[in-house]
Amino acid sequence: MRHILIIGAGKSTGVLVDYLLNKSTEEELRLTIADKDISHATRLCNNHPNATAIELDVFDQKERTDRLKQADIVISMLPARFHIEVARDCVELGIHMVTASYVSPEMQELDSEAKKKNLVLMNEIGVDPGVDHMSAMRVIDKIRDKGGKVILFESFTGGLVAPENDDNLWNYKFTWNPRNVVTAGQGGAAKFIQEGKFKYIPYHRLFRRTEFLDVEGYGRFEALANRNSLKYMEVYGLENVLTLYRGTMRRVGFSRAWNMFVQLGITDDTYQMEDSKDMSYRDFINSFLPYSPTDSVELKMRLELKIDQDDIMWSKLLELDIFNDEKKIGLENATPAQALQKILEDKWTLQPGEKDMIVMYHKFGYELDGEKNQIDSTMVCLGDGNEQTAMAKTVGLPVGMAALRILNGQIKTYGVQIPILKEIYEPILKELEAYDIRFREIETPYLGYNALHL
Amino acid sequence: MRHILIIGAGKSTGVLVDYLLNKSTEEELRLTIADKDISHATRLCNNHPNATAIELDVFDQKERTDRLKQADIVISMLPARFHIEVARDCVELGIHMVTASYVSPEMQELDSEAKKKNLVLMNEIGVDPGVDHMSAMRVIDKIRDKGGKVILFESFTGGLVAPENDDNLWNYKFTWNPRNVVTAGQGGAAKFIQEGKFKYIPYHRLFRRTEFLDVEGYGRFEALANRNSLKYMEVYGLENVLTLYRGTMRRVGFSRAWNMFVQLGITDDTYQMEDSKDMSYRDFINSFLPYSPTDSVELKMRLELKIDQDDIMWSKLLELDIFNDEKKIGLENATPAQALQKILEDKWTLQPGEKDMIVMYHKFGYELDGEKNQIDSTMVCLGDGNEQTAMAKTVGLPVGMAALRILNGQIKTYGVQIPILKEIYEPILKELEAYDIRFREIETPYLGYNALHL
Repeated sequence: MRHILIIGAGKSTGVLVDYLLNKSTEEELRLTIADKDISHATRLCNNHPNATAIELDVFDQKERTDRLKQADIVISMLPARFHIEVARDCVELGIHMVTASYVSPEMQELDSEAKKKNLVLMNEIGVDPGVDHMSAMRVIDKIRDKGGKVILFESFTGGLVAPENDDNLWNYKFTWNPRNVVTAGQGGAAKFIQEGKFKYIPYHRLFRRTEFLDVEGYGRFEALANRNSLKYMEVYGLENVLTLYRGTMRRVGFSRAWNMFVQLGITDDTYQMEDSKDMSYRDFINSFLPYSPTDSVELKMRLELKIDQDDIMWSKLLELDIFNDEKKIGLENATPAQALQKILEDKWTLQPGEKDMIVMYHKFGYELDGEKNQIDSTMVCLGDGNEQTAMAKTVGLPVGMAALRILNGQIKTYGVQIPILKEIYEPILKELEAYDIRFREIETPYLGYNALHL
Repeated sequence: MRHILIIGAGKSTGVLVDYLLNKSTEEELRLTIADKDISHATRLCNNHPNATAIELDVFDQKERTDRLKQADIVISMLPARFHIEVARDCVELGIHMVTASYVSPEMQELDSEAKKKNLVLMNEIGVDPGVDHMSAMRVIDKIRDKGGKVILFESFTGGLVAPENDDNLWNYKFTWNPRNVVTAGQGGAAKFIQEGKFKYIPYHRLFRRTEFLDVEGYGRFEALANRNSLKYMEVYGLENVLTLYRGTMRRVGFSRAWNMFVQLGITDDTYQMEDSKDMSYRDFINSFLPYSPTDSVELKMRLELKIDQDDIMWSKLLELDIFNDEKKIGLENATPAQALQKILEDKWTLQPGEKDMIVMYHKFGYELDGEKNQIDSTMVCLGDGNEQTAMAKTVGLPVGMAALRILNGQIKTYGVQIPILKEIYEPILKELEAYDIRFREIETPYLGYNALHL
């Protein structure tokens, strides 16, 4: 039996465990699922004979290394900042490791040591990052193999509510960490390149510089720029690309409405408000509007945002009940972003039985034999219920598939890796299709940034 | 002879030196002016028999302490971050010290040791902070002495170009550090309190939440909120005040126009642009606008900012020549703010002979015998030419006056001080009047935030 240690029994771990347990007899796998709360781990084991739940304090070095020593491969499903200690132990003890998180500088430092010991430290193999890398590199390599030159790459991902449960005016519900949604785009200007020109968008304009994307069978979406697209020049070997733009997908109209919050300043996560605990939703909103002895919060808000009462934007605000004078924020020393999250969670929390959706859209422009061409690649993954969410599937499955392939010696490139090599993405993308996670690649006329009708 | 050591022969030091040298015979003063470039110090000495110029590297501890030992008082006119080493030496060696800068936490730590040794470390005794503290505390103490209770305090200062040289569309020229002007308001939301309600304004809305102020003889100004007004509750002992608001004054229309830069994101000082050295002014602006194969930078700018060609805002942009395709930014690895500063310096640099102006406006609302009253206190100081600028006078004179009074034992409150005590502000405000720096205090009906016409 080969021994897989999975640390962290969070949201995406269920799908991962099911995938591996289904293969456990045939592949001779023995799983240990570790969590600081053993009940989470026990639930995921589901009494399967090849799975054991254990309690593990990942900060207890002795306990951690004792557990690691028994494993042939470790999968860390912990929050990203906790991977590094596990990774250092893995390199020390000669154990492979898999995570779905971005490669941190500390992780990268382990590269040469891992190579020396013939170890794979596979990272960024969830959905975004992960499935995006794999599906993009498949097309980029295909273009290169034909002798083409990539001149444009745009890539968009959205975690959204499935159409059947898309029933609020914002066309949005929280399908992953709400905090990341509220603070999305903060921490610096968005940077990208279009037709050879570097472009910068400040946070407070980000939600007004969207573009539309149509996905067959799913209608129209909008996309807003991610923070730094430029680093993907190096990651994907696209140093001479003219356009490189990565973004986040939402349903049309979300960004325009979210911009109201940005403009008010209520997405700010950098300072604590006075007296946030006893503040009503209405008080909270009023803190960002000018004082008036006579005008209502509603009137001041409409003037500040320059919207009429019959504007759908106004209806979106009312739907969130943000002018309620009785509901309290109820959080000590809350930042504006934390208070806003509280208000949104009242309305945007996915209810039992409701389903999520992951949408991905890549555009590749390339030159071949003097002609410009374009490939559009799209993927939609729907959740199947509360455990088998689209998010859990698109994270948990590629993680499991990568772990098994490393264990079986099918991934032979050692060191700190991300899934951009053919030996990794080709079989995994193929296997994902069995789980209905498939990309539809179509050749279209090159659209790029041509002016079609002057 | 008493020995005064002045470190740093910068912009405001000339007025300070002239003030002290004029008193040097009568008061038996001997001045040493130290600068890392001795020529700056020599020029300020102006061959006066009571002044000596020396070269001093303030980071050379031996040289620094050798010089300090010979002084009875030290005035540091260095940039704020360089005061602390001098201050520590002063406390160690038992020498008084004066600066015009905000008290840093490290400076505050010297308080008890300075008190033990009967030393005065006087800070924040320039114009803002400085003259603002003194003129505000005089009125606040007057209200308290009558038995009144302060319910509102608003305080505004502006460093502007004098009316006779106010000849561009922005009604603005750089009269002090341009960098601070370009980045003003950044680094967190503005915080204040109005009628008992805490209010927050994010940076990108700051320049749209102005109020008007009329100064007799000088017309109308506008004010925008400073970053954190709340800390003045403690500084001025106004813990129960209902309104506390500090701001910066500009001529009307400046903020609305400056907001165009804020909206574009070109005041950002947190990241370096690609290829800033060879970038034209036009390229720079275009980096913040969407790509288009056909539309001009001008058209995109007007659409982005939603302004018409005959809007005065547009004329203000053209006046700065920001669409010029030949003028280069010429700075390596410039932040957007640095590039913008370069463009503005072409047009907003005070020319030889041009004069500056300092304007200050305080409003005090108070309750006395059940009635609400208001005092408005205003001050305008005009520069007299290139050396005797309003900025240099309003900084250099109170610094000199405080130093002399400490030397003469007329300031008896020891420790780390700011000029909020009567023994300090009363004689200094009186002496400043001889230099035409005087406040006009008028009683007016309480305006506060009453709704006058519903």
